[in-house]
Amino acid sequence: MPTTYQPNRQDNVDYLEATFRKIFPQDNEYRDKATARLEQLTMPHWALGDLMDLAVDLAGMTRSMHPPVKRKRVVIMVGDHGVTAEGVSKYPSEVTAQMVHNFVNGGAGINALARQAGAKVSVVDMGCAGDLSALVKQGKIISKKIAAGTENMAHGPAMTRTQAVMAVEVGIEVAERLAPEVDIFATGDMGIGNTTASTAIVAAMTNKTLDQLTGRGTGLDDDQLEHKKEILARILQMNKPNAEDGLDVLAKVGGYEIGGIAGLIIGAAAHQKPVLVDGFISTAGALIACKLEPFVRDYIICAHRSVEQGHTIMQEKIGCKPLLDLNLRLGEGTGAALAMNVVEAAVAVLTEVATFADAGVTGTPAK
Amino acid sequence: MPTTYQPNRQDNVDYLEATFRKIFPQDNEYRDKATARLEQLTMPHWALGDLMDLAVDLAGMTRSMHPPVKRKRVVIMVGDHGVTAEGVSKYPSEVTAQMVHNFVNGGAGINALARQAGAKVSVVDMGCAGDLSALVKQGKIISKKIAAGTENMAHGPAMTRTQAVMAVEVGIEVAERLAPEVDIFATGDMGIGNTTASTAIVAAMTNKTLDQLTGRGTGLDDDQLEHKKEILARILQMNKPNAEDGLDVLAKVGGYEIGGIAGLIIGAAAHQKPVLVDGFISTAGALIACKLEPFVRDYIICAHRSVEQGHTIMQEKIGCKPLLDLNLRLGEGTGAALAMNVVEAAVAVLTEVATFADAGVTGTPAK
Repeated sequence: MPTTYQPNRQDNVDYLEATFRKIFPQDNEYRDKATARLEQLTMPHWALGDLMDLAVDLAGMTRSMHPPVKRKRVVIMVGDHGVTAEGVSKYPSEVTAQMVHNFVNGGAGINALARQAGAKVSVVDMGCAGDLSALVKQGKIISKKIAAGTENMAHGPAMTRTQAVMAVEVGIEVAERLAPEVDIFATGDMGIGNTTASTAIVAAMTNKTLDQLTGRGTGLDDDQLEHKKEILARILQMNKPNAEDGLDVLAKVGGYEIGGIAGLIIGAAAHQKPVLVDGFISTAGALIACKLEPFVRDYIICAHRSVEQGHTIMQEKIGCKPLLDLNLRLGEGTGAALAMNVVEAAVAVLTEVATFADAGVTGTPAK
Repeated sequence: MPTTYQPNRQDNVDYLEATFRKIFPQDNEYRDKATARLEQLTMPHWALGDLMDLAVDLAGMTRSMHPPVKRKRVVIMVGDHGVTAEGVSKYPSEVTAQMVHNFVNGGAGINALARQAGAKVSVVDMGCAGDLSALVKQGKIISKKIAAGTENMAHGPAMTRTQAVMAVEVGIEVAERLAPEVDIFATGDMGIGNTTASTAIVAAMTNKTLDQLTGRGTGLDDDQLEHKKEILARILQMNKPNAEDGLDVLAKVGGYEIGGIAGLIIGAAAHQKPVLVDGFISTAGALIACKLEPFVRDYIICAHRSVEQGHTIMQEKIGCKPLLDLNLRLGEGTGAALAMNVVEAAVAVLTEVATFADAGVTGTPAK
């Protein structure tokens, strides 16, 4: 895969706005057709529950009674966070770049779960503090580095508004570039410190307290958790992100990988392709994406409910029930990869199960 | 596949007792080895939650750090229920045999989901009221028919104790026969009326009320649900199953397919192979199996939590948290097939993810 992209921009048209104009709600005609077929399958009415709801969504997203989901891609957005200087994570920032090497070598959790699900993995350097140029030269990762990590948002905004726009644009570009070879996207993240940024985002965009929203990330103890909350309170107090302006929230308290995830989701929606949103960090990206263009919501599948406190609140804000609940808290796209099997199962139900008429089975009697 | 089996019985030894003697708890040495490896993977401690717990179980069941799970088999046990004469189901008993044809033709929900999971499906006639001899002759199903449906348990026991023993033995025989070609089993059921039998079993074996336990099965309305509860009260009152005697419960208020499922689970445990238990009916079989030999519990994986009221109570009784919760209520083994992906993912985590040392990633710091 080439490691640099030319933005597919139309001159004189704002790229974000132009992309938003391509995003439409799910198609109701296909939703109705899918519902009608599912109601005739050889089983009690709607007996495969959430799989059938998902099948209707997939038909509505893809405008197809055979929603394509075979070519699966997990896109891991990578970025570092200046706020790690405040001691909000158990791990040092160097781990971000180390984990990128692990992804490339196929040894991380996401590699194992993507292989199980038959998905490919792409890694995008959005803002890693470490030097990943060797991997870029080898064509093993995509370079879209905006800066070598965000600024420390405990002392001011994480990035400029221009950088926030760039992060989202770059995410869209990645989706645009991959769209011809991908049926379904999954979001993934890597970035030491990014549960702090994600907590700040959801705090800015809901009326919940930091006690309700702040979790242990990679495994903080009680004292460290209290410290993280104090830092978060300072971040929000200092930056005053405007909840009605997704780019302002991203710029002040976000991260490059979170902007990239938001862009990837927007780009998937513009191509009418489903996108499985992973855990806490990915869902922060989804919150930004939905704020920028609410129709994006129609292409999002919440993969799982993570252990991270505040994740449920994010999913309620988006209005999306997660498929899985397996006490995951890794990120990387692992929950999204796992949920790809559920998506594939939903398509199998829609496309492979016989109807009562086909199979000569006595149908549902009148009540 | 041949359609009849010679029981693999040792002369003068009771077959059930002989099988129970082969069932041992999970191996703690392998559990510990798996735990030690999982704690060194390149991720925060136990960050893949339930997948890691499951991986430890699989190592303990199979005595292996590479638990084999590739050869997957859903076994659908089929039986009819005399109690349908009482109007406890929306569907007539003929649907049981019609659905067996649907299974054989690959058109049912279980066929679609088993294909997605890479699992094969075997169908066993334990006690279908309909004539399935043509399918038996064609080698498409396994014939173990004990009787053409149970007696109406609203008027007396569903079957004799001898028949109950036979049903469990036959289930064990199926597991024995398949064991050389199967790594992991999944249970499935087909039998109009079998939520009534399963509810009676869990009512007999717990101190919960019929209001807590009785669900809508294939889709009863409120009046039909009340009627089902009245019939269940009569069944329990008339038969007085002895909760301490699994065979008594099975004989008085069970079903042939439920006995077959109990036997399949026992047989899987005797071969130290994991068995994914599906929904309400399968879990009723698991309750019987665990009552007969409590060590069986160590080989059971509860696949999902179904919509059917009372399923959660069954799973609590067994002491097993389900992997999925997708509002399924179909049976056939559909939830178990879907969960096979999760099992495969758990094995991938145990066997494919690099350790901190392998990958040169900075490990978890001391607290």
